[in-house]
Amino acid sequence: MLAYSTLAAVDLGSNSFRLQVARVVGKQIYPLDSLREMVRLAAGLTADQRLDEESQARALDCLRRFGERLRGFPPHAVRAVGTNSLRVAKNAASFLKKAEAAIGFPIEVIAGHEEARLIYLGVAHSLRPSNDNRLVVDIGGGSTEFIIGNRLKPIKLESLYMGCVSYSRLFFPDGKITRGTMRRAELAARNEMQAIATDFSAAHWQDAFGSSGTARALGDIITLNKLGNAGNDGDITLEGLENFRDYLLKAGDIKKLEIAGLPADRAPVIPGGFAIMSAAFSELGIRRMSQAMGALRQGVLYDLLGRFHKHDMREITVRQFMQRYRVDSAQAGRVESLALLLGKQLLTHVANDAEEPLRILSWSARLHEVGISVAHSGYHKHSAYILANADMPGFSRREQERLSALTLAHRGAVIKARDRITDPMDFALLFALRLAALFHRCRSDIQLPQLEVHWNNSDFTLLIEPGWLERNPLTDTALSTEIEQWAALDFNLRVKHDREGINPPDKTS
Amino acid sequence: MLAYSTLAAVDLGSNSFRLQVARVVGKQIYPLDSLREMVRLAAGLTADQRLDEESQARALDCLRRFGERLRGFPPHAVRAVGTNSLRVAKNAASFLKKAEAAIGFPIEVIAGHEEARLIYLGVAHSLRPSNDNRLVVDIGGGSTEFIIGNRLKPIKLESLYMGCVSYSRLFFPDGKITRGTMRRAELAARNEMQAIATDFSAAHWQDAFGSSGTARALGDIITLNKLGNAGNDGDITLEGLENFRDYLLKAGDIKKLEIAGLPADRAPVIPGGFAIMSAAFSELGIRRMSQAMGALRQGVLYDLLGRFHKHDMREITVRQFMQRYRVDSAQAGRVESLALLLGKQLLTHVANDAEEPLRILSWSARLHEVGISVAHSGYHKHSAYILANADMPGFSRREQERLSALTLAHRGAVIKARDRITDPMDFALLFALRLAALFHRCRSDIQLPQLEVHWNNSDFTLLIEPGWLERNPLTDTALSTEIEQWAALDFNLRVKHDREGINPPDKTS
Repeated sequence: MLAYSTLAAVDLGSNSFRLQVARVVGKQIYPLDSLREMVRLAAGLTADQRLDEESQARALDCLRRFGERLRGFPPHAVRAVGTNSLRVAKNAASFLKKAEAAIGFPIEVIAGHEEARLIYLGVAHSLRPSNDNRLVVDIGGGSTEFIIGNRLKPIKLESLYMGCVSYSRLFFPDGKITRGTMRRAELAARNEMQAIATDFSAAHWQDAFGSSGTARALGDIITLNKLGNAGNDGDITLEGLENFRDYLLKAGDIKKLEIAGLPADRAPVIPGGFAIMSAAFSELGIRRMSQAMGALRQGVLYDLLGRFHKHDMREITVRQFMQRYRVDSAQAGRVESLALLLGKQLLTHVANDAEEPLRILSWSARLHEVGISVAHSGYHKHSAYILANADMPGFSRREQERLSALTLAHRGAVIKARDRITDPMDFALLFALRLAALFHRCRSDIQLPQLEVHWNNSDFTLLIEPGWLERNPLTDTALSTEIEQWAALDFNLRVKHDREGINPPDKTS
Repeated sequence: MLAYSTLAAVDLGSNSFRLQVARVVGKQIYPLDSLREMVRLAAGLTADQRLDEESQARALDCLRRFGERLRGFPPHAVRAVGTNSLRVAKNAASFLKKAEAAIGFPIEVIAGHEEARLIYLGVAHSLRPSNDNRLVVDIGGGSTEFIIGNRLKPIKLESLYMGCVSYSRLFFPDGKITRGTMRRAELAARNEMQAIATDFSAAHWQDAFGSSGTARALGDIITLNKLGNAGNDGDITLEGLENFRDYLLKAGDIKKLEIAGLPADRAPVIPGGFAIMSAAFSELGIRRMSQAMGALRQGVLYDLLGRFHKHDMREITVRQFMQRYRVDSAQAGRVESLALLLGKQLLTHVANDAEEPLRILSWSARLHEVGISVAHSGYHKHSAYILANADMPGFSRREQERLSALTLAHRGAVIKARDRITDPMDFALLFALRLAALFHRCRSDIQLPQLEVHWNNSDFTLLIEPGWLERNPLTDTALSTEIEQWAALDFNLRVKHDREGINPPDKTS
């Protein structure tokens, strides 16, 4: 069942980049090797939200080193994910091209909600079993994730747009730490959290865990310097935070911070990280927080492992979406099965590995009508909007974008696909989806003709059982329109239904 | 309870404009007077979908005459609705301004789904009571509506983009009627209907009714000329349609059509109307169709009457949407009640009739979080998308656009409202909604301060109970941001919380 015994996850965080290599034994993951570099991508975001040249260079250097370590890994054994800085950077697309070349693997930017889900997955696997509800707070470089979960199951997920790098830059730009700047930073963080405070308050959980470098540093500082009644267990306590604030204000400057437990490369971002943690204690009523070992990269590994064990979160999400948006599953099934039949024929001689594109095709067929829940008129646009914007656990942004583009162009003008489709293979997926929807327009079980399709990157050929189109003039008319549609995209579609057709008894002509 | 004993509806259809004046007795409506003019708006749509000057002039002349008949009617006793041509015309907005000036009442463009709902409402009131399911087909000038309903309740609603004017122009541009052009027109119509054919097929209803001028003309022609086994009842039968097709092909030209039951002003659009009706008989399996008396304008009247009887369809829709999108109703209720409190204060000295704007404010407060169903991140954008695009029974497009603009700008940058708000009063509604959301950000029941707001079209003043902001620094910070936000729109927001405050015991300063 399992294809690979060694997996790797790469976390392109806003503060640090991390590589985790792990061995798989059964359904468990054991760390083999890890790398971490303080790239501090969020610090390279300019005022107009672009990654500057220096931060890009730092990132690419790091990714080349990671790439060296990953050489020889099969593609499906590695998953690299980008988080907040890559979500917000306006030049992310061009940077990602270079980044993928540097590391040698695709990089997927994930939404905040998905990041929170993966963090919880990683943390939950690292904790001892318990029936208690857990709060997990992960202060990243550019975003902070909040999760309440029980055992391996997340119950509430949130991602707020504030992190230790961005807050340190915003409120302590010159490194000075004063009572006024700290108060402003803490108030701003509390303001951000106010909207989620009721949902994540102490009434909803029993134990709180911190899972990031900020939490680790704060716990270590408090424990090693006996700042709070934390004992020796590395916990963060309210008292410890109060005492550390006094220390920060007394030092008065990032450059003067020297305290046991604070790594030198953490010092520049600790005032922002502290402000967020302190705000979380106030707003959510936390009294004590333990350190959790797992984090995003472990979550990515468990998610990857799940895909091999037929526990692909994306499958689960697609099924949930079909229910939530009350998709007509009979029609979705009809379109899916014809789309896959055609898709397999189209991709036979093209793709080395057609499994993933066919999965995208299957999902887009099952979800292409979710937009009917908004309105029937123009439903393909509503489907595209939902699939591009919804929280879809397990999916990366690029995958959602592919589903969105395919559903948008699955009917009507195919030209809409031009600016949205980046992988040429997706034109073949779109062709399969459009034909499947076209043949099943009457939404009832019909006797399909024998069909055969071919694709050579610019031309499509559709061979259709002789006589069938004459008996089905509506489909015949629709196919004529389809030829015009593809011509607008410079694809030549030829429909053959003469004796040259499928499995001809004699090949005379 | 009922404010007016005489109501009027105006239907700005793609083929004809109609005015219906009616007397209200109890919950029934009795026609008093009606006017009809063949404006044929759809024929004035240019290739790039703009209403040409001549058709606009015809329309405005007609509306001036209608306006004369409506002089003295109170605003809430009249409802004027526009349909397909005004939905698709790119210059509809500028035309509507002139049209509203001509008739002297607001004109609401309604979506196809809403048009179908109102048509069914009109038809259902005109039919004898029955437990059977009914199919209603309304072939308009630019769109055709299909409805299956039971008694007064619609079960399925569809609107397809094809009508007797547009099809006659498209397939019979020179007036010639040949076997080939008729076949193409019928095939095109069947193609349009294919997607709804299963849902609207004869298995789902017992009786079929036609409710438009096309249906009336075809029924009359068939009956008067004994073209089918229709008897004397004006029904349309399959046999009658076949025979009338033979007649059309034999005549061969619109100008040569002269047959009992076909009014002269109907002749130019009968070939397109016939093609659509014939396609409906084929695709939906209709064998016989009766004429229904009610239509869109009667539906508009009954809908208007419902609003006075506390049966406002919009209220019902808002409640359904809150359920469908699982809105947190406690939070919606908190925001709504504060928004209304502030809204009433703001509009006291401004609007003559604050009832309708306050209704918009209440609905936007109750629906501003529908977008959370898509994703929490950026939910206000998702709310705005849903409210602009969803089928919302009872709402006009303009009302949906107002709700969408208010929810989009209810948090974050208020500048987003600039290009979307057209009625200056809506800035006051937005102000009330934003403040209500701001004070209730923590999503729990809190002790609100005493509040008082004033508005003089450019400046807002907020008086707040002295001392409260000092005790609530998060709201204090948020209010400072709010001042900056409104400044970006050139509104001056002053927050006062000194002794000048609310109900001052002595007014010394």
